[in-house]
Amino acid sequence: MIDATHAPGLRSWVASANLHSDFPIQNLPLGVFAPPGGLPRAGVAIGDMILDLAAALPGVVAAGPTLNPILAAGAPRRRGLRQLVSGLLATGSPDRARVEKLLYPAADCTLHLPAVIGDYTDFFAGIQHATNTGRLFRPDNPLLPNYKYVPVAYHGRASSVRAPGPPIFRPSGQRKLPEEAAPSYGPCRNLDYELELGIWIGPGNEPGAPIPIARGHEHIAGYCLLNDWSARDIQAWEYQPLGPFLAKNFHTTISPWIVTPEALAPFRAPAFARPEGDPAPLPYLADPADRAAGGLALRFAVAIRTRRMREAGAAPHVLSRVGADALYWTPAQMVAHHTCNGCDLHPGDLFGSGTISGADPGSFGSLLELTQGGRTPLSLPNGEARGFLEDGDEIVFTARAEAPGAVPIGFGACAGVISAPPPAPGR
Amino acid sequence: MIDATHAPGLRSWVASANLHSDFPIQNLPLGVFAPPGGLPRAGVAIGDMILDLAAALPGVVAAGPTLNPILAAGAPRRRGLRQLVSGLLATGSPDRARVEKLLYPAADCTLHLPAVIGDYTDFFAGIQHATNTGRLFRPDNPLLPNYKYVPVAYHGRASSVRAPGPPIFRPSGQRKLPEEAAPSYGPCRNLDYELELGIWIGPGNEPGAPIPIARGHEHIAGYCLLNDWSARDIQAWEYQPLGPFLAKNFHTTISPWIVTPEALAPFRAPAFARPEGDPAPLPYLADPADRAAGGLALRFAVAIRTRRMREAGAAPHVLSRVGADALYWTPAQMVAHHTCNGCDLHPGDLFGSGTISGADPGSFGSLLELTQGGRTPLSLPNGEARGFLEDGDEIVFTARAEAPGAVPIGFGACAGVISAPPPAPGR
Repeated sequence: MIDATHAPGLRSWVASANLHSDFPIQNLPLGVFAPPGGLPRAGVAIGDMILDLAAALPGVVAAGPTLNPILAAGAPRRRGLRQLVSGLLATGSPDRARVEKLLYPAADCTLHLPAVIGDYTDFFAGIQHATNTGRLFRPDNPLLPNYKYVPVAYHGRASSVRAPGPPIFRPSGQRKLPEEAAPSYGPCRNLDYELELGIWIGPGNEPGAPIPIARGHEHIAGYCLLNDWSARDIQAWEYQPLGPFLAKNFHTTISPWIVTPEALAPFRAPAFARPEGDPAPLPYLADPADRAAGGLALRFAVAIRTRRMREAGAAPHVLSRVGADALYWTPAQMVAHHTCNGCDLHPGDLFGSGTISGADPGSFGSLLELTQGGRTPLSLPNGEARGFLEDGDEIVFTARAEAPGAVPIGFGACAGVISAPPPAPGR
Repeated sequence: MIDATHAPGLRSWVASANLHSDFPIQNLPLGVFAPPGGLPRAGVAIGDMILDLAAALPGVVAAGPTLNPILAAGAPRRRGLRQLVSGLLATGSPDRARVEKLLYPAADCTLHLPAVIGDYTDFFAGIQHATNTGRLFRPDNPLLPNYKYVPVAYHGRASSVRAPGPPIFRPSGQRKLPEEAAPSYGPCRNLDYELELGIWIGPGNEPGAPIPIARGHEHIAGYCLLNDWSARDIQAWEYQPLGPFLAKNFHTTISPWIVTPEALAPFRAPAFARPEGDPAPLPYLADPADRAAGGLALRFAVAIRTRRMREAGAAPHVLSRVGADALYWTPAQMVAHHTCNGCDLHPGDLFGSGTISGADPGSFGSLLELTQGGRTPLSLPNGEARGFLEDGDEIVFTARAEAPGAVPIGFGACAGVISAPPPAPGR
């Protein structure tokens, strides 16, 4: 539903919101932040400021350090909140004098996870990524027979999903090169990132009660960017027969702002156009409305900044750009599939889309693909080369939603710096 | 540490505790129960009664519906609590008159999950099960090359782990027989159970700080029985390349009592005896003390009671018996491996051991193995036959710890009845 809160002419009295920000007044993403010396609390990003939501709307938003109650309440509640916040922050608002005191410069604040994540599920919906990586393991048969029927997914670790801030400690683990007789334990040698779209869930369903595809969108509470950091050498040795485990669960970074379905309403797009010959989705995954508008007009960018680049004051170097139209399954299809066996979803559950890659190397969402498993390292503008990530490397994901007649919005950054692990405690 | 709370001569003034109960005074497992009309609260099982823990020990145990704080506090706290509760319930206790009023008949109470489960991880440590099931998929190569090096595991779904009580709704999902050209969506035809040992975690570790094997036991807060209900036909079609997902996450049942490491102290046993020729564990998984006493002298039993048996008043029929000595990896090795990449564990995390099967059919922990994938159905005493589970079937796991000179203890039942799913809500 597109309403006055999306009007391209709408502006905020927060000046930075009107200057090509990720967070114009048409966005109003929800998050949890702590101002300097203060406790974590609900907030809305506006330009380069953050609004203290419970203080601005007492009696409407409960004070507290998580947004799970807002996720649980569903779309009508989010729409109501959006209207109120839009009114407070719009040019000419009579509340400006009161609200101005409740704004904090984002640069001074700590961003937290916006909600307690009950369960985290990682999908595999980037068909080009599935093909590219399948080719590395099975050159003659890259895409498995179930791929075009099943929105393939696996459970990830909720405890290690984090907002940007803490270092990404290089994991250790068992690695075994094909030519080695036995594995050894040591630091990951093939550390990688994976570009994904994150999907926040709410309100969810009761056990045994699948969510029909036509209602899938009612259970999507918002979106973020997600970096599924991956230890490729650990993964290759451990993953058979039960899937990735320690190769993934040391750290997952998400952008801390929940960009709501309401903010993205002007950017709905058709679902993935299945090529001629692809099977039709099974009926429980098929919905004409989802097919027409279940996708998102989103463009992602992945950039790297090495320690040397940072020390030289260089900006991050873009490695790839890709659109969300590379996802074979829509978020509503993911919801319908995840619950089709009666599995219960809850407010604060998080999905990852799976790595998003396009057809050409400039759109690949991981180094595994960009460097063919490290065999053809990338050259960076300052002369450095990378097969996989080195300590000190920073990876930054950003995204923009763009559509004719709409003010573009963004997600903020999903960023992390690789670090050697902390010294082991005394044993 | 074996102390006076384990003394074989120690008896309780709760008479049922002294009559070959799973819960003699030497056990004292922790749980969360609700008496009739009351709120969930911490409890200790004693015979066929439950003690209201916070009421019995005000100022020692906080009132509240989860045991996560007790799991977080670690072994010294649990030992102190055990001493206090043992004193209250022992014959001759001066507190008997006061405490007697705080006991509830277990049969009248509702048992809840004892803790909020942050993350649930399922291991694959039953080597005979890995071999048996591997043979079904890869007859010539049942055990993959990583098995004897890596304590293989994958993440499961925390939200669908439940205490006994609710029905096990038969899941629907995509199934595809090899001779079918395309999959279809419908009710699972090959519904199965998996016998596992559950392991409760606490206190846990910080991100980036692995738990050394020698300290693994400090982070094991207790044990339970776990039924990893499995939809075999859904699993076979979905599991490549990322592992089991909807085949497992519709429901996992655990016995509701946390049997503590203190209660199991007399039942420590050597770790799995690796056959000649098996590789030694890598150093981060090797510890002499764990090798000497990292196992448990536990015997499990799996029983079935069909609807017809129940209606005829028949007792459950035992399908198999097996010991915990069939586990290739110890719980401490699981903790060390899970954290060896820096992954952070938290109080209330739950591990499953993986299905426990012995070498002969009378010790197999799943129907998949007992019936060779349904091809050779079991005959039950009343003339019924089972390849996989039918609606109305109840599966009951029990276990006993036994050792010379110690009073045997049990776990209570891990039970569930298969049911058709509830009618779909209006769409």
